[in-house]
Amino acid sequence: MRLRHVTGSEHILNQSDYIIHDYQNDKNQFSKLFQNENKKLYIEIGTGKGNFIIENAKRNPHINFIGIEKYDSVLVRAIQKIGDENITNLKFIRMDATNIDEIFHHEVDLIYLNFSDPWPKARHQKRRLSSSFYLEKYETIFKQEKHIIMKTDNRKLFEFSLKSFVDYEYKIKNITLDLYQDEIEDNIPTEYEKKFHDLGYPIYFVDVEKK
Amino acid sequence: MRLRHVTGSEHILNQSDYIIHDYQNDKNQFSKLFQNENKKLYIEIGTGKGNFIIENAKRNPHINFIGIEKYDSVLVRAIQKIGDENITNLKFIRMDATNIDEIFHHEVDLIYLNFSDPWPKARHQKRRLSSSFYLEKYETIFKQEKHIIMKTDNRKLFEFSLKSFVDYEYKIKNITLDLYQDEIEDNIPTEYEKKFHDLGYPIYFVDVEKK
Repeated sequence: MRLRHVTGSEHILNQSDYIIHDYQNDKNQFSKLFQNENKKLYIEIGTGKGNFIIENAKRNPHINFIGIEKYDSVLVRAIQKIGDENITNLKFIRMDATNIDEIFHHEVDLIYLNFSDPWPKARHQKRRLSSSFYLEKYETIFKQEKHIIMKTDNRKLFEFSLKSFVDYEYKIKNITLDLYQDEIEDNIPTEYEKKFHDLGYPIYFVDVEKK
Repeated sequence: MRLRHVTGSEHILNQSDYIIHDYQNDKNQFSKLFQNENKKLYIEIGTGKGNFIIENAKRNPHINFIGIEKYDSVLVRAIQKIGDENITNLKFIRMDATNIDEIFHHEVDLIYLNFSDPWPKARHQKRRLSSSFYLEKYETIFKQEKHIIMKTDNRKLFEFSLKSFVDYEYKIKNITLDLYQDEIEDNIPTEYEKKFHDLGYPIYFVDVEKK
């Protein structure tokens, strides 16, 4: 996602307790940063303006959440959205996902990939967050079972991702090619999802697992 | 597919050389019925009015085709469509697919499932031609590699089938959630497909393989 520069976003993020500032030194020990007894850690790669992960964290206080986002200009919206609320099971990291396997090590239970960049050109295939390049990285960040939930409005990215997950031995736990046509419980829309659903586009959803 | 009774269809089918009448006695030796040297056998389960398999057989004379259809009232349309043409690599069997594993034995290279009955009720799940009940039967009819190509306009059947194929260790070779939006070469539409595509419905396509 590319957004215009938000003046002062860097300053706001630097001051926020929701940001894990020293994530390079905290690596492999993120659970200690949360002052709770939660056993599970769910992460969202490309957390954008944060609606999904903020709402998810509020609904599921027994799970810890980390949102990963490389663009300060969108992440600042998430921090502004939280405002004065005290959500003790939510943190964010400002980083590019390319090095995610150097930061997390056998501590993640679930990865959310919401409306990821489709990188439509074949030569950029590796950059898609569901490519084998990334699936290999995810292998070592998951605790044991691998569990990915993806939502997108991009048909080509979804087709590619299904093939990629299955090639990588994931099984399909749940799938819908039109999320809003099904009776869905507890769906939390992202900002992007709301917009594209309102425009009449189908939202694709898949929940995949690997033992 | 349920169609009105076609007067005289049984008589027409009984007279046709395109029908394998004595299929119970020819089982496991279907290649001998074709007077050619073709090595490959492709079958379509639920061949309906035959447009797909007739056109496929004409375009691919080096492959033998058998269409399986239980309803005489639709199969007669296929026989009438062929008329006086001499297509030496095409045959039909009038039977229900339930016993397909008793008829073919390690001689099929590819199964087409085109616009199969979706059997929407959960209690009828087993009857769907992509259910594990059928995938188990297909195991012994394939020569060695298992190869299934499915087309449907039924979203729920498609979602179910993807999950079912993957649970059964099939890999996705090719997939599109909107066949007519993609640049497709050599697609042969079924009668049903033409109608539903013209009405604006997306046609789902998947090509799966198992070594």
